[in-house]
Amino acid sequence: MNRITGLETLINILIAEQDFDKKPERLYAPIDYVMSQKGKRIRPILALLACELFQGNIDDVKYPALAMEMFHNFTLVHDDIMDKAPLRRGFETVYKKWNSDIAILSGDTMFAIAYQYAMKTQPRYIKGVLETLSKVAIEVCEGQQMDMDFEESDMVEIEDYVRMITLKTAVLLGSSLKIGALIAEASPNDIEEIYNFGLDFGIAFQLQDDLLDAYGDQSVFGKQLGGDIRSNKKTYLYLKALQLADKDQSQKLKALFTVDNHANSNQKVKEVMAIFDQVNVKKHTIDAMQTYYEKSLVHLESIRVASERKKDLQFFIESLYSRNR
Amino acid sequence: MNRITGLETLINILIAEQDFDKKPERLYAPIDYVMSQKGKRIRPILALLACELFQGNIDDVKYPALAMEMFHNFTLVHDDIMDKAPLRRGFETVYKKWNSDIAILSGDTMFAIAYQYAMKTQPRYIKGVLETLSKVAIEVCEGQQMDMDFEESDMVEIEDYVRMITLKTAVLLGSSLKIGALIAEASPNDIEEIYNFGLDFGIAFQLQDDLLDAYGDQSVFGKQLGGDIRSNKKTYLYLKALQLADKDQSQKLKALFTVDNHANSNQKVKEVMAIFDQVNVKKHTIDAMQTYYEKSLVHLESIRVASERKKDLQFFIESLYSRNR
Repeated sequence: MNRITGLETLINILIAEQDFDKKPERLYAPIDYVMSQKGKRIRPILALLACELFQGNIDDVKYPALAMEMFHNFTLVHDDIMDKAPLRRGFETVYKKWNSDIAILSGDTMFAIAYQYAMKTQPRYIKGVLETLSKVAIEVCEGQQMDMDFEESDMVEIEDYVRMITLKTAVLLGSSLKIGALIAEASPNDIEEIYNFGLDFGIAFQLQDDLLDAYGDQSVFGKQLGGDIRSNKKTYLYLKALQLADKDQSQKLKALFTVDNHANSNQKVKEVMAIFDQVNVKKHTIDAMQTYYEKSLVHLESIRVASERKKDLQFFIESLYSRNR
Repeated sequence: MNRITGLETLINILIAEQDFDKKPERLYAPIDYVMSQKGKRIRPILALLACELFQGNIDDVKYPALAMEMFHNFTLVHDDIMDKAPLRRGFETVYKKWNSDIAILSGDTMFAIAYQYAMKTQPRYIKGVLETLSKVAIEVCEGQQMDMDFEESDMVEIEDYVRMITLKTAVLLGSSLKIGALIAEASPNDIEEIYNFGLDFGIAFQLQDDLLDAYGDQSVFGKQLGGDIRSNKKTYLYLKALQLADKDQSQKLKALFTVDNHANSNQKVKEVMAIFDQVNVKKHTIDAMQTYYEKSLVHLESIRVASERKKDLQFFIESLYSRNR
């Protein structure tokens, strides 16, 4: 069992130990339901790895790490209401299985529980951890609002898009690492480097998400390819393709992105993919991903810890970066 | 200007100083909108009064007090989605003025901002304040879920109802007082007494709310009387009336509480009020209110502070208790 599997197990056991079998039943059952689904546990694993990197005490960080997982799941429960998403991790979403009122309220409760977990550490770390959690919570909400605003806008620039995914996705990875580093009492400089490492890696990670949705391998992807295209999502691929397209392609792409999800969607995906291929958007996206990934590695390298100690963290992000679903 | 008006002004100025003019505009505009409405500011005033009672430093408590107001307003923004409430304080609710997605997300942001405010105090108080805030946040969600569960249940006992309003309303008053007392470094015993004072007063306060909705003076009440009856809300009045009613009255009351809000609702209110009057539910409700109010005063009296120092707090709760809207 490698270290990553060990840490994942630690988190899963910690989750299993939590008591969500409480009243009112309809408030806590969704929390239990969501938390027992085996997600990738990326955020808590990052917190634990950062703490180990700086030789902190795992016992001090495990609950703050769990807080990041609880917070992340809270945002998914609320996002799924807004996105009207029926499925997540192969299961019905909370708002579908119960209803949106319950999804709102269970989500709110998860947010409060996340704060309780975040405080379960040595008193001297509480302020730093909670400041980090509150800041990232606000940023994630800002990112989600930007994402919703983009749906109604024709003027989204790639720069805005990168800002949006930074807020919606990357800051939470950076903050999880930061919390681990804070609790391990890393130097301010190293804390900044590991946070920025998480930010750049998070952007690469999200670009890869966009790419897999269109160019993934159907046999391993686990869900239907082209979901973002079907729902007219303004991903990096779409925005970059618009930038690369000639007038004709651009008009056609914009027109295709006004077609409803249900109407002839296989044909629509095919036509959009044809334009994506014509402008070679796959290569451009991989280039951008690679740029952010390499930037993230520069931050990791500049952390003042023997490179031997960075192995586990490096292994983990490499495995995420080479994922195919 | 009495002390209460002074403290209310202090809170209103503090709110006016906050910068909610941020991007994304559709995330922050609702926060600004809700917070600038002049509510009664009951919770922050209680926090400030409790701090003064125990001779704490007002500067240490003002942001945690503001946190309680922000948290309270967050719960209203989310509750209004669930209750489909079109108006609050005479203004359109956030979900009506914008939409429910924005109300969910602005609410989440307000919750996170509440935590940021709660931390703006001396480091030694942060843990106590945040533990109190997280605990009460979970309790308020539990209370709201119980309230929603009651809508679908025919078996609500008065005891359950009191438990529900304790969680949904009273604990937040108790916790606001507790935070003020914590920051003033009151003794553990006094902190417990002032918390319990807030709990019992909070129950009396909510019972009065139920009463005013049916028996308020229309000329000062500010909204249409009988709103709870129209929407079939299982208030203390309804549950107590069922307990007091004979078989005939009970059947009729239950039947009336299945009638839709819009269908002939003036006639319905008239018929329900007739049964309420027959079983004398007004007197019984006032008796219950008075019992909780007096219980609250016993807690206040047992706090080990010269009674002279309790004057402002006493004046404030008396003014709330004698309100007519």
